Amino acid sequence: MMSPYVLKTLSTDQKGLYHTSFKVPDVYGVFQFKVSTKGSGTLACLFPTEDKKNNIFVVMASVNLGTWVHSCSIFNQASLSRSRSQPFSPFKRVPMSLMSSKKTKRPISISAVLTKEEETLREEDNSNNSKPTFDFKSYMIQKADSVNQALDGAVSLREPRKIHEAMRYSLLAGGKRVRPMLCIAACELVGGDESMAMSAACAVEMIHTMSLIHDDLPCMDNDDLRRGKPTNHKVFGEDVAVLAGDALLAFAFEYMAVSTVGVAPSRVVRAIGELAISIGSEGLVAGQVVDINSEGLTDVGLEHLEFIHVHKTAALLEGAVVLGAILGGGSDDEVEKLRKFARCIGLLFQVVDDILDVTKSSKELGKTAGKDLVADKVTYPKLIGIEKSREFANKLNMEAQEQLLGFDQEKATPLIALANYISHRQN
Amino acid sequence: MMSPYVLKTLSTDQKGLYHTSFKVPDVYGVFQFKVSTKGSGTLACLFPTEDKKNNIFVVMASVNLGTWVHSCSIFNQASLSRSRSQPFSPFKRVPMSLMSSKKTKRPISISAVLTKEEETLREEDNSNNSKPTFDFKSYMIQKADSVNQALDGAVSLREPRKIHEAMRYSLLAGGKRVRPMLCIAACELVGGDESMAMSAACAVEMIHTMSLIHDDLPCMDNDDLRRGKPTNHKVFGEDVAVLAGDALLAFAFEYMAVSTVGVAPSRVVRAIGELAISIGSEGLVAGQVVDINSEGLTDVGLEHLEFIHVHKTAALLEGAVVLGAILGGGSDDEVEKLRKFARCIGLLFQVVDDILDVTKSSKELGKTAGKDLVADKVTYPKLIGIEKSREFANKLNMEAQEQLLGFDQEKATPLIALANYISHRQN
Repeated sequence: MMSPYVLKTLSTDQKGLYHTSFKVPDVYGVFQFKVSTKGSGTLACLFPTEDKKNNIFVVMASVNLGTWVHSCSIFNQASLSRSRSQPFSPFKRVPMSLMSSKKTKRPISISAVLTKEEETLREEDNSNNSKPTFDFKSYMIQKADSVNQALDGAVSLREPRKIHEAMRYSLLAGGKRVRPMLCIAACELVGGDESMAMSAACAVEMIHTMSLIHDDLPCMDNDDLRRGKPTNHKVFGEDVAVLAGDALLAFAFEYMAVSTVGVAPSRVVRAIGELAISIGSEGLVAGQVVDINSEGLTDVGLEHLEFIHVHKTAALLEGAVVLGAILGGGSDDEVEKLRKFARCIGLLFQVVDDILDVTKSSKELGKTAGKDLVADKVTYPKLIGIEKSREFANKLNMEAQEQLLGFDQEKATPLIALANYISHRQN
Repeated sequence: MMSPYVLKTLSTDQKGLYHTSFKVPDVYGVFQFKVSTKGSGTLACLFPTEDKKNNIFVVMASVNLGTWVHSCSIFNQASLSRSRSQPFSPFKRVPMSLMSSKKTKRPISISAVLTKEEETLREEDNSNNSKPTFDFKSYMIQKADSVNQALDGAVSLREPRKIHEAMRYSLLAGGKRVRPMLCIAACELVGGDESMAMSAACAVEMIHTMSLIHDDLPCMDNDDLRRGKPTNHKVFGEDVAVLAGDALLAFAFEYMAVSTVGVAPSRVVRAIGELAISIGSEGLVAGQVVDINSEGLTDVGLEHLEFIHVHKTAALLEGAVVLGAILGGGSDDEVEKLRKFARCIGLLFQVVDDILDVTKSSKELGKTAGKDLVADKVTYPKLIGIEKSREFANKLNMEAQEQLLGFDQEKATPLIALANYISHRQN
């Protein structure tokens, strides 16, 4: 469980330079930054920096001064090292590094606050100094294990063997289970438990897998490699691959309808509707068909690209989060906040995917790299360059995390960490 | 509404020959034959015979003497003319034509009884001689109209246009809407009304259409013609056809979850689960994959063939009927009886399809004829010949209708007529 640090004051009025660093002992915490100024302007991007030896992090974020609340996170999988900071003792005032892009002389007040009382945290700190409070890696592994176990049991190797072999081949090929984890974390955030969301979590992963199988078909992206293995149709033939996708799509709904436990039927029906919407002709498929029709086009702008990404990728991530929130008993307001959170991280996911496609090798990705370039697909790096794409990714991550401010911050930790994971993943 | 004729006695003990004929004025009625004997033996097939001018029908059926109750139907779409009978005045004793395949000398008693009281019927007969009591054609047209209207509204032409055009192209291509009608009729049989089953009826048709789109793909059956029009991928391309199928599959569940009205959520969840099961890796897809793997095999027997048909065709028809029964508020016992009914007519549907493939032209079928032969597929005509396939079809029709005996026979009329329609359809 998370025990966030309380940083009462980080304010300073150095001209355009605000700096801090702090030691975070194996902690993934969340900080809410309140930035206020009488003027307005955009602060430069802030990037996470990791000092593995000392567990030092600098949290950096792009914040618009007109926006007065931003949420940033601490994580230990940062990839963008820009600076190395001094060890930091929690609860002490320290400078915070915020480079202003407009070197304003206006006074800027920045404070980072966290949810738990300082006193409580001090007690915890005294009793067990540097105690790990939220181990994201363990959380991911535990959830992925649960999901894999459930998927393995759900799609067992039964007759007819060939179709179940094909379904299992792609479903159990070691995906990162990001969507199931989002689903479960959203459920837990609104007060539900893992068991209530497990069927939906698996359903979302089945549908994700199905979309990959069909997307890889020769008549679609014609891909030979997926998750480091030959694509489904390469192993089982195109006909069986089409059917395996169809079967996974159908089974996702069967599993939700038959295996969801401890949830009122009205919520199950609502969740099933949401899942279907997220993948249909105004969801995932809409993104795919517009994507296909955009190949080779020269006049594709940002809005068009965002439509593709919001539908092709964000919709299913939105489905995952919204399903979890519904099944966990979330209020309509909670569901809608989490929907917005999911849309942001969904778009983020695809922006990062675009970046990885041009910056990583096939081996690193576990799938064919550079295929967007080969297919002459419109991507964020192609439209605005890699650096601005990265900035946009960071902005989306923060916008996502803003949506979580009204929730119990301790319970929100996994979702925040997942957002950061999506933002900084390497494959 | 149906006003069946009451034929009190048809018994005779002619050696192996029982004969009757009767005039049925524009009526689709149902007769329940009670056949009893101290021995056992199989009576030869009885075929419907039509005298259009005089509306004369001879109902003939294959009955096993060990089975003491069979249900046969009167219809006016009979295709197999074997004899022309004398005009028949209802409620008079007439000989009935039943050829015994084993010329038994044992006394056989045959009676045909119907649900309504003779007196009531006589009154109706007096007040309005030859009044049509159940107009199956009108029933079919009315239900198909309702379903087409609902489908048109459900999958409207919205953005992205291409995918919705593709979905609508196949969905609104004038299918016979047999599955939706089965769904609605089952719902009405157990006491529900059309509105309760309409979303499920449409969902089943969406999934049926999706299975046709994917089945026609070059990597599957590679078909150019469907319902008299170029197949989906011929018009929209393979990639869009794959996605249109996926979208229809997803939308089926969305429509059920979002648009089902007047039904308890627990029943909606149960119905969604049933629908998914009927099309998944142990339903429709199972049949397709085993069918694909059977092409060219030389050692395919009847059991294997039945597995294909029961899954490839019967499963979705079963889904249609069971969904209707669940949503209409049917008891578990009623649902299971209707499930068995559906399995029989589902297998019947495919047996007839097999027969039509070798006996009709492409023009008559609205799709490529003889394709099973070309693909060297195992079919009933191939395994047991056309005549025995027809006998089997008649047997299945009767087994199906046996399941309906416990229901209100008036309400069962549409399902019985639908079973007969499936049995005697010409395309």
